[in-house]
Amino acid sequence: MSRAPDTWILTADCPSLLGTVDAVTRFLYEQRCYVTEHHSFDDRLSGRFFIRVEFRQPEDFDEHAFRAGLAERGEAFGMAFELTAPNHRPKVVIMVSKADHCLNDLLYRQRIGQLGMDVVAVISNHPDLAPLAEWHHIPYYHFPLDPHDKPGQERKVLQVIEESGAELVILARYMQVLSPELCRRLDGWAINIHHSLLPGFKGAKPYHQAYNKGVKMVGATAHYINNDLDEGPIIAQGVEVVDHSHYPEDLIAKGRDIECLTLARAVGYHIERRVFLNANRTVVL
Amino acid sequence: MSRAPDTWILTADCPSLLGTVDAVTRFLYEQRCYVTEHHSFDDRLSGRFFIRVEFRQPEDFDEHAFRAGLAERGEAFGMAFELTAPNHRPKVVIMVSKADHCLNDLLYRQRIGQLGMDVVAVISNHPDLAPLAEWHHIPYYHFPLDPHDKPGQERKVLQVIEESGAELVILARYMQVLSPELCRRLDGWAINIHHSLLPGFKGAKPYHQAYNKGVKMVGATAHYINNDLDEGPIIAQGVEVVDHSHYPEDLIAKGRDIECLTLARAVGYHIERRVFLNANRTVVL
Amino acid sequence: MSRAPDTWILTADCPSLLGTVDAVTRFLYEQRCYVTEHHSFDDRLSGRFFIRVEFRQPEDFDEHAFRAGLAERGEAFGMAFELTAPNHRPKVVIMVSKADHCLNDLLYRQRIGQLGMDVVAVISNHPDLAPLAEWHHIPYYHFPLDPHDKPGQERKVLQVIEESGAELVILARYMQVLSPELCRRLDGWAINIHHSLLPGFKGAKPYHQAYNKGVKMVGATAHYINNDLDEGPIIAQGVEVVDHSHYPEDLIAKGRDIECLTLARAVGYHIERRVFLNANRTVVL
Amino acid sequence: MSRAPDTWILTADCPSLLGTVDAVTRFLYEQRCYVTEHHSFDDRLSGRFFIRVEFRQPEDFDEHAFRAGLAERGEAFGMAFELTAPNHRPKVVIMVSKADHCLNDLLYRQRIGQLGMDVVAVISNHPDLAPLAEWHHIPYYHFPLDPHDKPGQERKVLQVIEESGAELVILARYMQVLSPELCRRLDGWAINIHHSLLPGFKGAKPYHQAYNKGVKMVGATAHYINNDLDEGPIIAQGVEVVDHSHYPEDLIAKGRDIECLTLARAVGYHIERRVFLNANRTVVL
Repeated sequence: MSRAPDTWILTADCPSLLGTVDAVTRFLYEQRCYVTEHHSFDDRLSGRFFIRVEFRQPEDFDEHAFRAGLAERGEAFGMAFELTAPNHRPKVVIMVSKADHCLNDLLYRQRIGQLGMDVVAVISNHPDLAPLAEWHHIPYYHFPLDPHDKPGQERKVLQVIEESGAELVILARYMQVLSPELCRRLDGWAINIHHSLLPGFKGAKPYHQAYNKGVKMVGATAHYINNDLDEGPIIAQGVEVVDHSHYPEDLIAKGRDIECLTLARAVGYHIERRVFLNANRTVVL
Repeated sequence: MSRAPDTWILTADCPSLLGTVDAVTRFLYEQRCYVTEHHSFDDRLSGRFFIRVEFRQPEDFDEHAFRAGLAERGEAFGMAFELTAPNHRPKVVIMVSKADHCLNDLLYRQRIGQLGMDVVAVISNHPDLAPLAEWHHIPYYHFPLDPHDKPGQERKVLQVIEESGAELVILARYMQVLSPELCRRLDGWAINIHHSLLPGFKGAKPYHQAYNKGVKMVGATAHYINNDLDEGPIIAQGVEVVDHSHYPEDLIAKGRDIECLTLARAVGYHIERRVFLNANRTVVL
Repeated sequence: MSRAPDTWILTADCPSLLGTVDAVTRFLYEQRCYVTEHHSFDDRLSGRFFIRVEFRQPEDFDEHAFRAGLAERGEAFGMAFELTAPNHRPKVVIMVSKADHCLNDLLYRQRIGQLGMDVVAVISNHPDLAPLAEWHHIPYYHFPLDPHDKPGQERKVLQVIEESGAELVILARYMQVLSPELCRRLDGWAINIHHSLLPGFKGAKPYHQAYNKGVKMVGATAHYINNDLDEGPIIAQGVEVVDHSHYPEDLIAKGRDIECLTLARAVGYHIERRVFLNANRTVVL
Repeated sequence: MSRAPDTWILTADCPSLLGTVDAVTRFLYEQRCYVTEHHSFDDRLSGRFFIRVEFRQPEDFDEHAFRAGLAERGEAFGMAFELTAPNHRPKVVIMVSKADHCLNDLLYRQRIGQLGMDVVAVISNHPDLAPLAEWHHIPYYHFPLDPHDKPGQERKVLQVIEESGAELVILARYMQVLSPELCRRLDGWAINIHHSLLPGFKGAKPYHQAYNKGVKMVGATAHYINNDLDEGPIIAQGVEVVDHSHYPEDLIAKGRDIECLTLARAVGYHIERRVFLNANRTVVL
């Protein structure tokens, strides 16, 4: 699972066709790339093929030629691929409001190397979490929400994201509904954590909803943003057992751990290029 | 947890008031009953008190006098109580359709003594599971559904339940919506297993709903019947992790285990008198 | 995960070498076999390569030619492979003593098609479980243990196994230590369930050991038999949370579920050809 | 579960005798203390009784008189009790080496109020974690280990603990074996986290041991220190599922989460006075 230092990741997907696996594996062999992990899945209901390969490069590896050659080989299959270099660390922007448990957890995992990413900015509609970002030497942008000019605030948010060169945006308990325009811009590369086991308890105050319903488990869902509230493709889910003695504030406290773990898991999958979109579902290889 | 052979269970509930615990424990002491396990919970939001005690009787225990004395003592608190004798085995009626995994599991647990109940009848709208009931020497009632006379079928069902002296009805994947009349009759003493983590995926074909939504966990919910479909008070829930490679038929197969375990757990709690109704929620002591 | 009716399974392993993946996938492509799931793993510590492929056959598939061709192709890599036909159901012998929960569970899963195997014999050192086997129309062999002639009993056991044509032996709570000779004969194709999370609580009465140690979790381990007691390669493990109120008999009761689930999972993996031996460890693809 | 602001905790234990529950509950009633949660357990194997009560005080509550009265009442039963005031926050000393995940997690939970404790000192045999302690404004004591004078280092450690007024010491991955003398001093009020599911993989490098054994689950155990290495009474355990693709360094990474969660759970139980010693086991009410 942990990668050796010279290991690349290749991911690809295309419609289901005879020869898709061979197209990739034969090319890798011809390039003398050593495959260390290979996982492919052919979805017989959606008719799509997904593949993820980790390989060690030969000494004289030429990335440019590799990309060109694979593009040519995959053309007949309508194959789109991504190639991730051994030491690539994606730039990441994290958005938060006042709750800091997910931010604290993500920054900790970055710091000890468990998440191979570079958080380049923290954006918030509140000033509260600036000290935490600063202790990690990360710029903190406080863009308060003006109820009369939400588009203006979102323009500032988007500007920071774009100028940062971020490949991933994480909504780590950002408690604002994004406009459809911003959702569209972030479609497929922004991960949100919702504090319920979707599709149960969509919308506001899920732990209070859970209390009122008397459930015996609470959960969290990490999913990609799309333009339907709390409805984007699910990447990871987690649960905790609860009982009658948990008042709403206890559910909130208990839920923090599972929110952190579920979000960190989803971010890890994304960074390791394990997640593929398959209509409104995900394939995680 | 396992009870010694001379151990009674006393459960009671009433509005929250100073002295409720003392009323019960002092009475038990005066009767020289030896308390082995005691759990009480006072719900500060609903303002109700719940208590469950296991106690060993003195040699000269007089059940009649005990009941009379406790009723008198509890009167000032508006306390309702139930007293369960050491060797009491409640009579149970199980309702099924064609799927047999929950029935097989419940009968197995009865046979080895893990569930201290006597299944006195199995009722079905299909003939398929008769051999399984017969192998366990349990009468099997096949009442097919006549679409023009559903009330007639339900009358037969209710007659068997009533004549059997059942204290509990288990809907072990009975795939019919009960009429409001029957629901009302069974309110609080019938347990249903629904094959999703409620409130997610109510209604028909929850595993197909779960597949379409692309969830990463499927679950099961055991709850009391009331007159709102899949909305009765929840007793127990369970989950299983799934992934993209699980087609709907795989979710169905995977879900069987968690349905069995969740239903058996809820039935065990009910039989051991651990479950209290608290408005539309349950307290499980 | 569920296989379409014309789907074969191919598994292979060999030392780690450049070209192993390509050798398999190119051959499959040349044979016009359609790969639906492919998983390979190259263990950088043991230096071994493992691959499991599910594929749909072309209309004119020639198994004999396929085997011959692949053997030739894999020779240069020292590759051993197994090919499993779409409707292959391995013959299985189950060994038990008095506890019937695992046997009941396995036969149930066979009956509903969740485990694609044919149980051809049940062997026991006690007569108790004969009725259960008979209800499933499976021959039951009662070979009591003569303390003065254990080898004699084991000869009878082995004779039934060999004459049955079994490909798999399951020790479903067979409470006897096998002789080193019998262990050697069953090495790699007999699965045992041990009622603890190995390597904790080896040997006799693991639940009593667990009680005395005061653990907060009990577990079960399914592993291949080898000649070291409770030390064979682990296939699957499961756990349950327990607390101070569980006396040894409660741990035994609680453990039954996790024993059944863990054993069934391991048997399923074995039947679906997911398990590879990797020195004293397993790879499960 | 969350306590109202005027809620006290009363815990007591004594030999099993008729009247123990009544002795406590009657006294509370006479003092007009309102019981919100009550849990007692009578261990029929060890013959000991354990009780934990949360109660709201009356307006004119006199702690001194309460203690004196209860001591008198409990004398006949040989009852030892502890009374914990509503806003009591125990002083805590945390010991660490180089790994910071448990320390980071504990300090975070203290900061947001999830663990109601005051960490008054962090002690380490390495300087590495000083900045983390300082960010939380907690004194950091670096006492390097002199192999020729381990007793000298331990004297310094003990001096800080004693002068700090700590009620609890947490060994949050302190990678040194304590001397029997220090163990004796900390017996019953120091919690250690061991990174395996004890009794499996005692001693050094448990994740490497786990890898070599090929287990499918790794775990963590929080236990009280006593004078037998990794053998003190267990408070909490947690597990994570792993597979063949986890190399030792992956097990270490994966284990961090479960170590944090398990230790935080045990510390929470201790602070809420839920843990009782019962010979070499614990009762957690």
